[in-house]
Order: sequence, then C-alpha cells, then structure tokens
Amino acid sequence: MNIHGQPHRSIEAVPSTRTARIIDQTVLPHGVEWRELRTMEDAAEAIKVMRVRGAPLIGATAAFGLCFALRENATDAALQVAYHVLHATRPTAINLRWALDRVRRVVSPLSPDERADAAWAEALAICEHDVQVNHAIGKHGLELFRAIQTKKADPDAPLNVMTHCNAGWLATVDWGTAISPVYQAHDSGMKIHVWVSETRPRGQGASLTAFELREHGVPHTLIVDNNAGHLLQRGLVDVVIVGTDRVTAHGDVANKIGTYLKALAAKAHDVPFYVATPVSTIDWTITDGIREIPIEQRSAREVTHMPGLTAAEQREEVLITPDGTQARNDGFDVTPAALVTALVTEYGAFPTTASALKELQAQA
Amino acid sequence: MNIHGQPHRSIEAVPSTRTARIIDQTVLPHGVEWRELRTMEDAAEAIKVMRVRGAPLIGATAAFGLCFALRENATDAALQVAYHVLHATRPTAINLRWALDRVRRVVSPLSPDERADAAWAEALAICEHDVQVNHAIGKHGLELFRAIQTKKADPDAPLNVMTHCNAGWLATVDWGTAISPVYQAHDSGMKIHVWVSETRPRGQGASLTAFELREHGVPHTLIVDNNAGHLLQRGLVDVVIVGTDRVTAHGDVANKIGTYLKALAAKAHDVPFYVATPVSTIDWTITDGIREIPIEQRSAREVTHMPGLTAAEQREEVLITPDGTQARNDGFDVTPAALVTALVTEYGAFPTTASALKELQAQA
Repeated sequence: MNIHGQPHRSIEAVPSTRTARIIDQTVLPHGVEWRELRTMEDAAEAIKVMRVRGAPLIGATAAFGLCFALRENATDAALQVAYHVLHATRPTAINLRWALDRVRRVVSPLSPDERADAAWAEALAICEHDVQVNHAIGKHGLELFRAIQTKKADPDAPLNVMTHCNAGWLATVDWGTAISPVYQAHDSGMKIHVWVSETRPRGQGASLTAFELREHGVPHTLIVDNNAGHLLQRGLVDVVIVGTDRVTAHGDVANKIGTYLKALAAKAHDVPFYVATPVSTIDWTITDGIREIPIEQRSAREVTHMPGLTAAEQREEVLITPDGTQARNDGFDVTPAALVTALVTEYGAFPTTASALKELQAQA
Repeated sequence: MNIHGQPHRSIEAVPSTRTARIIDQTVLPHGVEWRELRTMEDAAEAIKVMRVRGAPLIGATAAFGLCFALRENATDAALQVAYHVLHATRPTAINLRWALDRVRRVVSPLSPDERADAAWAEALAICEHDVQVNHAIGKHGLELFRAIQTKKADPDAPLNVMTHCNAGWLATVDWGTAISPVYQAHDSGMKIHVWVSETRPRGQGASLTAFELREHGVPHTLIVDNNAGHLLQRGLVDVVIVGTDRVTAHGDVANKIGTYLKALAAKAHDVPFYVATPVSTIDWTITDGIREIPIEQRSAREVTHMPGLTAAEQREEVLITPDGTQARNDGFDVTPAALVTALVTEYGAFPTTASALKELQAQA
C-alpha cells in the first residue's frame, strides 16, 4: 500500500541485484528507513530483531534468506545449515517453517548450480501468493462491509470499523488480512473510518496500524484498548475485524491479547466480529483453543516500560511503574468460536458452525 | 496506609502549625515528596495540577484551603471569594462542592474571629469521616472476600482480586474504597493477591495502585488492560472490585474507562463484580446511567504520549504514535447494573436489585 503517496510492499525484490529491501519496522512509526538484505545473515538478523514481523512477512523474508545462502554455497550441507539458521530466528512462527520447506522442496532435487535461481523464483512466488491470498480476503471482507453499510440508518455516514493490533500490510507482503477489506473499501470510494486500538503492551495499533492508515489516507482514530466497550455500547462501531495467529478446526481464535474482550463487547451489542485469516492459519488438528493453544508468556519489561520519542526527538524507553514492579504478560488470548461471526478467508466468509467449517476444510 | 513501613494518610493535618501536608501525587511512582499546604493558594494549586486527586481527597484538601483563607481574612466577602476560587479548581468534582458547603455551613453563623478555628475543626472532621466510611466499606468487602475464599477448591491458595484504576488510599484520606477490603484482608493475615490493570491512558493502576500495594506489602502483579479477559477465562481471578465516580438509583456505575470490559468478562465467567462506593456517590436523582451520565472527553495527548522515567532517571514524556495521530479519549464508561453483583457501601453490600437499592436509600 502507499507511503507518502507511493505504492510499496513490506518486502520488495530488487531484480537487478537479486537482493531484497525491507522497511525497518523497528524504526516505525517515527521514521521510514529501507534496508537492503543481501546475505542470509541480513535476512536472519532482520527477523530476529523484528525489523520484519507478522507471520507471512517473516516467511517471505526467510525464503529470500535461503536464496542468498544458496548463491554463496549451494551444496546440500550448506542448504541444511542455512535452513536451520533461518528457522532458529523465530522458532514458533508457523509460516517461517512453511516458507523454508517450500524453498527446500523446490531446490533439493536440482543440481547445485541451478539452486540459487530456483530459490529466487520461489521466493518471488511466495510473495505473490501472499499478495493474492490477502487480496482475496479483502474482496470477501469488502462484500461483508457493503452489506453492513446498506443496513445503516444513515447510509451516507462512514462505516465504523474497529480493529486490534496490526493485521495490515506491514504484517504481510501487501494488503494485510483484517485491514485488506478496509483498503479495498477506501480505494473503491466507500466512506470508511477505523477505530485503531493501541494494543498494549507493544502498541502495534498505535504505531503500525495508525502509520499504515495515515500513509494510505484512510480516516482513523486511535483509542486506548479500554475504550472499546464504551464505543460499542454507544453504537459507534458497525463491525469489528481482527487477524489471528491460529484458528482451531472448531473456529476458536488465538490472537493478540485483548482480542477476547473486544469479542465479548461486540457480542453484547450484537455487532459482527470477523476474523480475517488465510486458510493456512487454521490448524485442523486441534479443536479446543482454550485447552490446546499454548499461550506465549512474554517479558514483563514490555508492560513496565514504554518506548517512544522524546520532545528532543530522541528514541527513549521510559519506566511507567514503581521500580521493581512484577508484571504478567500473556502474548495472546483465545476467543471462543461462539463469539466469532465468521472467518473471512481467501475462499470467502465462513461462519464458525461445524457445517460451514467442514465445507471450508473441503475447499482448502 | 504504609509507606516505607510507616503509616500515613494522603493528607495529614499538622496541628502545631495548623497546616496540612500532602503526598505530591504528580511525582509518584518514581519518588515520594511531601508538600506543605499553608495557604488557600497552596491548596487550590495542589488540586488544580492534580498533586491530589480522587474525589474524597480533593474534598478534604479544599476544606483545609477554606480554613487557611479564613485565617487570613474571615469576613463574609473573603469567605465567598475563597469558596469560589477553590470550587473553580475542578468544577465537576462532586465531593469538592460537598466539602466546601459543609465548612461554609459551619462557619457562616459564627463571628469572623471564631471562623478559622471552626473551619480547622471541620476540615479534621471531614477527614475523619472519610476514613471511617472507607474503613466500613473495607470491613463489608472483607466479609465478601472471606465468603469467596471459603468456596475455593484450594482454601490455602491466595484470593485473587482484580481491580482497575486507583481506588486505593491515595484517592481518599486513607484506606481507599475498592482497595480498603484488600488492606483489611492482608492486615488480618488472609492470603491475597491483586491483579493490577495498568489503566491506560493515565496509568493510575501501573503507577498509583502498584505503588500503594508495594509500600503496604500486598502481593500484586501488574497486567495490561488487555490481559483481563484471558485471566478471567483461565480461572485466575476470584473477584473483581472497582471504585466509581457516580452510581445511579438503579445501580448503573460510571467509572474509569475500561471498567465495562472487565464487567462483561467477569459476567461471562461468573466471577463476582463488586463496586465499592460511599453512599454519597450514589446520585438518587438519575436512573439510566447510559443516557444520564455525561462522559468527559479528555485530551488526545493522554493517548498519544506516555510519561515515565528514562534510563538516566529523567522524567520525560514520549510520543508513542505517528506524529499528528488523532485520538479519542473518553474518560469514563458506564457499566449497567445487570453486570454489577453488589455495591459495597459503608452500610454493607447491596445487590443492584430494585428492592435492595430502596433499602439502601432508606438507610442512607
């Protein structure tokens, strides 16, 4: 999507040099810095220190990393080493392994001198596939938005969408998942306004989603996470849409901590609660999200400290609690399927009923 | 309650000099600074810049301010001026007017040379009354805690209490409202643990409640507001208790933004949700909180900026969003009576049923 009016992807191939460039997301939202990835080490470091984040984008970056490694040494042994180095950067990211497996499967049968070219082509294909999937999610989400819009008392008023965390283009190669229908609605001329919840502790809403929407020109308003219930109660939200890290076969949804509270409030006020997800994020081997999805415990420091920009435009992290305060920091929560109106996938929107999910599984 | 092992009140009379001293709450939690109030101007400034906050504490501070004014000039005209100067510091605070009215009523019939002494005595009486009311709230809350504790599967495990914002002793003269039963439980030897939600945007949980509990030695863990639903879902919360800014005759509760989301999650998991409040906070003239309680819109800067302590121990405010991001900042939300298990008052706990609330009104 756009930055300063120019279309971009979060990772861009540079064909002339066969390198890739990324937006350094550790610098957002206080500056935009592009960074060239030339070696496997560059790619691994970018994933590790979270210059790139978001499962699809991590996968694409790792694919380029494997390609760069093969350009230097394409033996079987080198392939194995590179695979493991890249995989170790964020071992729990499902898409990371998926992307690495995909490249390895393509290059393994080839002779070493063919491997780097094939890996480059596969990395490009992984990126294109991600863009297509997200575009399709957005198209189906837009249909849902249009249906809600036509039912509004004042059809000329903007559609008020609430989201959580960052499921926008910066978490993918382009479009995003939950924000893809927002971009497509905006680009098609529909009046739309987004409530961006800041998403403590890491503030992905306040930094990344607010940045994306500003740069693309989509009207939006930032709120603290606490404000979501009040806005829903006052009829100021027409639809809630979020991304997800993992969905069970029964439609339970793991997503950034705080998602569950928004789902409860949406239900209380009869507002649709959609989860935008590629089918690849559905784990068909598990059913009960509360029992079967492990919840990552993250650092207390994310709760007790806050990074930002000082008045002198220095990046600083400030302590916001008494010195030594203990904190608990669950990274995710699980929203039961009963609170999810539908999964919005590249195959269309599927309610979280047993029959609809079976139908989705058959198509996928 | 205690600071560094010594008992304190948030405002303390100094009889030898007939002055008062307060903890400067703008400096918390990164330091404890006491500040002497000698003049009406000192008291007015302390309220205005929020060195003191919390309705009961504001009222007590204003009462001392009126006393100081009368010591300098006790004419009817001077009394009127001082009343208005103090009242203008935080015009929406109900207790501020109540305390000023109470002092004025006592001193008005007196001759000017008796007024300062009478005002001093009345300021002390206002403080004592607040302490007694809060102690009674705590006693009744403790009975509820004990009843919940006995029903726990493991009665030796600590009682897990969740709270929001700061309804502790720093918001009152002593004890607090919602945290009063916590202190009484802890002091009586009961095992108790408090989940402190940080309470964005102003972070009263992260700064004030965490500070209070640390200083008094009560075990507690800080969480981001987003974490509340997850902890309730996992059975890690036995009871939720919060304070309130205004209660309607039907039991709807206005409190710090984010309270409503916690109430919804408590209801979803059948966990008691108590609101600790002096009866004076109940507005018997209104019934429908959603329609009749105006919600204060506060500055966007509270959302986009965060104050804290840098690594070099400097107090700094950092920008946490893209430059120029718009934000909406509702100060409060309304929790409907149906989600409130009971009001915990100085007269006991009253469920939010029509009959119980009538009984409470008759007693009050």
